[in-house]
Amino acid sequence: MSLRPSLLLLALGLACPPLLADAQTPYKSAQEILKASPDADWRTLDPANTLYMELPAGRVIIELAPRFAPAHVGNIRTLAHEGYWNGLGIYRSQDNFVVQFGDSSEDENQRKSIGSAQKKLPAEFERDAGGLKFDALPDSDGWAPEAGFVDGFPAARDPQTGKTWLAHCYGTLGAGRDTAPDSSNGTELYVVTGQAPRQLDRNITVVGRVVQGMELLSVIPRGPEPMGFYDKLGQATPITAIHLASDVAEAERTPLQVLRTDSRTFSAATEARRNRRDGWYVHPAGHIDLCNVPLPVRPAKAG
Amino acid sequence: MSLRPSLLLLALGLACPPLLADAQTPYKSAQEILKASPDADWRTLDPANTLYMELPAGRVIIELAPRFAPAHVGNIRTLAHEGYWNGLGIYRSQDNFVVQFGDSSEDENQRKSIGSAQKKLPAEFERDAGGLKFDALPDSDGWAPEAGFVDGFPAARDPQTGKTWLAHCYGTLGAGRDTAPDSSNGTELYVVTGQAPRQLDRNITVVGRVVQGMELLSVIPRGPEPMGFYDKLGQATPITAIHLASDVAEAERTPLQVLRTDSRTFSAATEARRNRRDGWYVHPAGHIDLCNVPLPVRPAKAG
Repeated sequence: MSLRPSLLLLALGLACPPLLADAQTPYKSAQEILKASPDADWRTLDPANTLYMELPAGRVIIELAPRFAPAHVGNIRTLAHEGYWNGLGIYRSQDNFVVQFGDSSEDENQRKSIGSAQKKLPAEFERDAGGLKFDALPDSDGWAPEAGFVDGFPAARDPQTGKTWLAHCYGTLGAGRDTAPDSSNGTELYVVTGQAPRQLDRNITVVGRVVQGMELLSVIPRGPEPMGFYDKLGQATPITAIHLASDVAEAERTPLQVLRTDSRTFSAATEARRNRRDGWYVHPAGHIDLCNVPLPVRPAKAG
Repeated sequence: MSLRPSLLLLALGLACPPLLADAQTPYKSAQEILKASPDADWRTLDPANTLYMELPAGRVIIELAPRFAPAHVGNIRTLAHEGYWNGLGIYRSQDNFVVQFGDSSEDENQRKSIGSAQKKLPAEFERDAGGLKFDALPDSDGWAPEAGFVDGFPAARDPQTGKTWLAHCYGTLGAGRDTAPDSSNGTELYVVTGQAPRQLDRNITVVGRVVQGMELLSVIPRGPEPMGFYDKLGQATPITAIHLASDVAEAERTPLQVLRTDSRTFSAATEARRNRRDGWYVHPAGHIDLCNVPLPVRPAKAG
C-alpha cells in the first residue's frame, strides 16, 4: 500500500506541479532545471579522491578536499589504503551535531597502529584564497564576509585576510582534534548531522564531505553519554571497511557525478530555490543560506 | 567499558575545561552560566500548552504557540483531547528535512474522523508584531530583517510591515498544507529534523516546537520514496498516543522548565556561544545564527 497520499496536507507543497507565476518569466523548479542540464555541467568524482565507508546498512560515499587539507587528505588516503578503519566503529552520535568514528580506545597504548601514516600533521583550518576559483553566492552570510563554493565544496572567504576555508554544513567531514590546533592525525573523523555548526569553521580541519549515504549516518541512535558518546562498546556502529574508491575493483565502484558549482545549471537551480514561485509559496524567501544549497549528485553514465 | 576517551582527538573541544582568555574578563562557558542561573530566569511549561507524543521509544514533549497560531493550537488541543492521533503513525521521514505524522490514508473517505475539531482553519503564517515582546538577537539574519525570540520561540520580525512570525529551526512543529494557504486543519504535522528550512517561514503555519525528545524523531529511518514517504504502511513509526499534558495524571507528567529568552542568563549564554574563548577555539565566530541558539530545558523542581 502506498503511503503517498495524493490529496491533502501531506507534502508541504513539495509535490505540487510548478505553476506559471509570471507570464513573462515562466518559473522552472530546481528539479526541472537539473533534468534539462547539459552533461558538461557535471563532473565525475575522482576515485583517488573518493572514500567508500562500508556500513552494515550500506555504503556512504565521501569526496575528499585535497586543496584545503593536503596533509590530512594524504594521511587519510594512506589510512584507508592500509585498512585502518576496517573493524573500528562509529562511537559517537550527538543529536543535532555530529557522528564520529575511529578508534575509541581510552588507553593510547591500546590504540590501533596507524601504519605508515604520519603521526603529526599541521592544522589546515584555512588557506590562501589565491589561485582558487570562488563561486560566490550573492546572499549574505552571518559567519563570513563571503560565502560560496570552491571545488564544489561550501566555503567562505575573507578578502581582507586573503584566506578561504571550508564551511561546516550538513555532511561536512572533519578531523577531530584536542586543544592543540595541530593535534589531529586524521584517524578520528566526524560528519555533521545537525544544524550547520559554522562556529567550527577555521577552528578545525575540514577534509571533505559526504556526497551520498547521509541517511545511513543521520539515523544512528544518539549516544546517552555527554556529547553523544555511548556507554558501552557494543552500542557503536561497526565499520566494515573504509576504502579509497581507487582501491576497489571497478565493477564494485559507485560512479557518481556532482553538479559543477560554476555551471549555469547550478546558478539557475539555486535561484529557483532562492525565489520559489511554484504556486505553493506565498512569500518567496529572496535568500538562501550557504548550507541550504544542495549539491546535486547523479549516477555517472556508463562509458 | 566507557567509550569516552580521556585523551585525544575525540571531543571537538567541547569537553575542554574553560580557560581564562583574558584576565580582565574571565570567560564562562554557556554551561557554567546556566549552572549559576537564578530560578527566576526559568519558566515552567504550561500543561494546557504542552503535548506528550508517546512513541514506542519514549516521550516527545512539544510546546504549543497559541499566540502565533491560535486557531491551529485550538484544533490541536481538541484533537489531542479526543485521542485523534492515538494509533496513527509517522508516515514520512525525509533526510535533512522533516518527519511528518497524522493520517496517511489516500482516500479522503477513509480518513479518521476529526471529531469535534474544526474542519477549516485560517492560514496563520504571520501576525501583527504589536503587543508581543521581541527579544532581538544583535546578529544579522539572511532571511528576515530581524531575528530573535517571542514567547521563547525562535522568531523573525519585519519593522516595515509590522509583522512577526515563527522561524523554521530544528525541532519546529508545523501544520502541513496543500496549495491553498488555508488548507491545513492541524491533523498532519511535521517536525524539522534537518538544516533549518527557513524558506518555509511565512509560507505555512508553525504551531510549536519540540522541547525534549528530538533524538527519538531524528533517528527515524528515512523513507525510500520521494520526499521520505514509506512505500509500505508497516514502515511507519506507530504513535501510541498524543495527549495534552493537562489531560495526563499529574504523577505521569514530565514537568519541564525552559530558560526565559528575555533573561540575563539567556543573553550571557548566547554571547558565550557567539564568542567562544575556552582555549579550544582559535577564531571565535563573533556571530550566531538564530537556529544555532539552543533553548535550554531542565526538569522543573518539585513543589
